[in-house]
Amino acid sequence: MRTWCRERQRDSQTVGFVPTMGALHEGHLSLVRQAKAQCDVCVVSVFVNPTQFAANEDLSRYPRPLERDLQLIANEGADAVFLPNNGIMYPPGFGSFILPPPVALPLEGQSRPEHFRGVTTVVMKLLQIIPADAAFFGQKDFQQLRVIEDMVRDLNIPTEIVSCQIVRDDDGLALSSRNRYLSDEQRQAALSLFRALGRAEAMVAAGERDTQSIEKAMTETLAVCDSIDYAVVAEVDSLQPMRTLQRPAVALVAARVGNTRLIDNRIL
Amino acid sequence: MRTWCRERQRDSQTVGFVPTMGALHEGHLSLVRQAKAQCDVCVVSVFVNPTQFAANEDLSRYPRPLERDLQLIANEGADAVFLPNNGIMYPPGFGSFILPPPVALPLEGQSRPEHFRGVTTVVMKLLQIIPADAAFFGQKDFQQLRVIEDMVRDLNIPTEIVSCQIVRDDDGLALSSRNRYLSDEQRQAALSLFRALGRAEAMVAAGERDTQSIEKAMTETLAVCDSIDYAVVAEVDSLQPMRTLQRPAVALVAARVGNTRLIDNRIL
Repeated sequence: MRTWCRERQRDSQTVGFVPTMGALHEGHLSLVRQAKAQCDVCVVSVFVNPTQFAANEDLSRYPRPLERDLQLIANEGADAVFLPNNGIMYPPGFGSFILPPPVALPLEGQSRPEHFRGVTTVVMKLLQIIPADAAFFGQKDFQQLRVIEDMVRDLNIPTEIVSCQIVRDDDGLALSSRNRYLSDEQRQAALSLFRALGRAEAMVAAGERDTQSIEKAMTETLAVCDSIDYAVVAEVDSLQPMRTLQRPAVALVAARVGNTRLIDNRIL
Repeated sequence: MRTWCRERQRDSQTVGFVPTMGALHEGHLSLVRQAKAQCDVCVVSVFVNPTQFAANEDLSRYPRPLERDLQLIANEGADAVFLPNNGIMYPPGFGSFILPPPVALPLEGQSRPEHFRGVTTVVMKLLQIIPADAAFFGQKDFQQLRVIEDMVRDLNIPTEIVSCQIVRDDDGLALSSRNRYLSDEQRQAALSLFRALGRAEAMVAAGERDTQSIEKAMTETLAVCDSIDYAVVAEVDSLQPMRTLQRPAVALVAARVGNTRLIDNRIL
């Protein structure tokens, strides 16, 4: 894989990389399209990374529709697919990790303590195996994007991190591989994440600057979910809370509907 | 620096890399020679890495004879020198680290708890900036070498780690930038590290297999030092202790003479 990339780069071609956990949807495919538009060749990886799941999470039931994924990747005209297995990525004796930057600590870092350590470690490994000129990440996982941006900067990884817009269904639900867990009824509750963010945006447009009022409104809207992990307005770079709205800011929500944990966000 | 390396590699030249903290001695220069012998071009870095020093250690007084170092590097015919400053390596906001592999936990990991985290982080950063085909490390810092070997394997860094023999003065003292801290009298005490390892080797040659006896003998020999951090026989890969000698094994010693902490080791 590395040799393949290096040969392309030796021929002055740029390599774009889209890391995924499979179960691809239009969000992933939009990343592939952006990689193809910006780079000469495009590599997609499919790997359900066990180190970013906690013991109580959905690793075992995470969807793995591999044949469909490969067909979707081929349809988009990607040039190569990297499909490692656990034994290749984490052989016996494996034991080095990336300790993520401080932006990993709040929000998801509180709800899923080891999660970002697994994400930074696998992304570092993938970027060593696939020395891409640019790697494409969706803004749906906004904190993940910020964590990876800081890691790449801190550790001098020579890959540009490209931030790509959230893709939504017609009803507003942010696309996620986990949406397929939702029943029709649960999906209605899940839409409260999108509505909560819309409410935050409307309040800001109407002049609201008190973030606690905005967060209270988002929390009210999310009440139809089975539990709420967070509904906050945070500073875009650090993801630290702010009392009075100052741009750039981002509203982030995480909630559970049934057994399905959903996240969404919007730049304010 | 990265572009310079990539251009050499594009011309099918191999790049050898010798990371140092300066205060160069024959040990470092032997690494440069080995890099030049094995690779087409050779890069040497000089950077006293603050993140591998604890607050109570000798960061501020660590020797920095830069002009002499550059002259020595030039004399060896190295092709490039990388001389970053703290602001370039650790700009404001820096906060991602490499969590070292388990081999970092015993020995130095006990005596210097944050030390290897600083080492793995700076080596990772340097290998991203200088994407060498091979990097050369001395066996004098045996555990450091093992930590870096495991990190490079775990994180798929595309650089071969080359392990190079310890260089000693005529009296047996392993070369170290910290030897210059020693008075003549302290140097005599420091030689006990070399003698302790020689005693361990002689005992093994005479058939001794009980590691506690070997460790006791080494500790006796080190009694002229001001304090002993460890004097152990360990398994070469894991650096875990062993009760009955089984090859491959390594004897490792760490002791303090005055304010100077010294380490040495020998494969048994």
